[in-house]
Amino acid sequence: MEVFVVKTAGFCFGVKRAINMAYDAAKETSNEIYTLGPIIHNPQVVSKLEESKIYAKKNIDDIKNGTVIIRSHGVELKEMKEAKNKNLNIIDATCPFVKKAQEHAEELSRDGYFVVVVGEKEHPEVKSIVSYVDKNAVVLESAIDVKKLSRVKKLGIVAQTTQSIENLQAIVSECLKKAGELKVFNTICNATFVRQTESTGLASKVDCMIVVGGKNSANTNRLAEVCKKIQPNTYHIETKAELKSEWFEGVKKVGITAGASTPNWIIDEVVKAIKNINC
Amino acid sequence: MEVFVVKTAGFCFGVKRAINMAYDAAKETSNEIYTLGPIIHNPQVVSKLEESKIYAKKNIDDIKNGTVIIRSHGVELKEMKEAKNKNLNIIDATCPFVKKAQEHAEELSRDGYFVVVVGEKEHPEVKSIVSYVDKNAVVLESAIDVKKLSRVKKLGIVAQTTQSIENLQAIVSECLKKAGELKVFNTICNATFVRQTESTGLASKVDCMIVVGGKNSANTNRLAEVCKKIQPNTYHIETKAELKSEWFEGVKKVGITAGASTPNWIIDEVVKAIKNINC
Repeated sequence: MEVFVVKTAGFCFGVKRAINMAYDAAKETSNEIYTLGPIIHNPQVVSKLEESKIYAKKNIDDIKNGTVIIRSHGVELKEMKEAKNKNLNIIDATCPFVKKAQEHAEELSRDGYFVVVVGEKEHPEVKSIVSYVDKNAVVLESAIDVKKLSRVKKLGIVAQTTQSIENLQAIVSECLKKAGELKVFNTICNATFVRQTESTGLASKVDCMIVVGGKNSANTNRLAEVCKKIQPNTYHIETKAELKSEWFEGVKKVGITAGASTPNWIIDEVVKAIKNINC
Repeated sequence: MEVFVVKTAGFCFGVKRAINMAYDAAKETSNEIYTLGPIIHNPQVVSKLEESKIYAKKNIDDIKNGTVIIRSHGVELKEMKEAKNKNLNIIDATCPFVKKAQEHAEELSRDGYFVVVVGEKEHPEVKSIVSYVDKNAVVLESAIDVKKLSRVKKLGIVAQTTQSIENLQAIVSECLKKAGELKVFNTICNATFVRQTESTGLASKVDCMIVVGGKNSANTNRLAEVCKKIQPNTYHIETKAELKSEWFEGVKKVGITAGASTPNWIIDEVVKAIKNINC
């Protein structure tokens, strides 16, 4: 069985940066330090960070003092303000691309646009972007959602960084009927776009596709979704423990990809485990 | 044979306004007056205007003095300047929606956007819009043309007022891959949009569709095009003289629509002629 791994699988620039910032912060102090929510959407990495006394806390209320790391996918403006009011030592590990999306949303709102955020309503990144909009903003998950919008004069659009370009295109297209003026910041992260393109490219050439990454990771879920469209024999796992030998029966070529929050060591373990499966 | 006429067939606001301005101007003087190019794209109306001593001239060089009427679909900025330099009495009958498209193109250019005009390269309206762009502008006729664009930071889009929303959507969609920031002014005239929607709606309910209007009229050509997609038995004529009885053999329901530059008297003549055909 031949095994192929997508070149861009695994940690992206923003995730690498956030993890490094967390470890660097841990080196500076012997006290516990905290991240506001999991620093990245990978349970295995979050557990590993606890060995260095870096703990994820759900709410800003759970952090009384010391150092707080702002996770890679950002926090809401009010949480940021609260952290400042509490005089916490803030280390902002928000991915620079998410920061850009927050800034563009703020700018559109200031310039009088009705703001649409293309993304998943409940995702922390989307909530953080929305929080930067002064007035009402609406989150749209798919083109069908555009129907419920009223006509406005000026409509501004930003996207969750891990959205697929196809979904952004479909929503922008429908929004053209809803406003005389449309301003779109394509805030989809290029790494996400390239990873999706390379992964679907590989998916079309293999008999089975394995997508590795947190089940709570938006970009990994979307990666599994786009690969499954090309290769129905696609499975999304967090670790090698979930692999099932029956997936590989009669399979000659396996493709492996991984989300932006999946560390190399987990990918390596999966590759090794698949190579040991006898088919 | 039942005959149905689309409610929005015929003269639009901008055309009515231009024609009225021309006749009003003729009342003020006993001299010849001129339009720069045909005032609207309907040869029969242009001939009728000659009875009131209103003549279409191809170039500004052909007009030495007196009154010049700027046609409904606008002229290039350099022609407008030349008319001013010649101290001609300028009556600007540019359709206010075309004027908006010119102004938005100028604004986008001033704000540092690379300007795309969605429309027909050789159409005078498109040429007039392009002339308001300070730097280079590119005219795109269909989504395939987007491929040849280089990536830019800021891309601004305006549309010829008679474009179909579907073509604008397709081009905007592809342009999303070409720039981080996209600003679109949907300058498609609402009357065009409503007329297209009502006409295709009627086309789906009849056995034969007649589209009346100038063969040089962009909006009439497009109207015929969208109707033909729904009802292959669609014919584009300028006047009743072109009607052929064989089109109506076995036909129970006929639909009639007309472009924005088609006067009511021509539509009425066509309706009457069809009613007189025995099938």
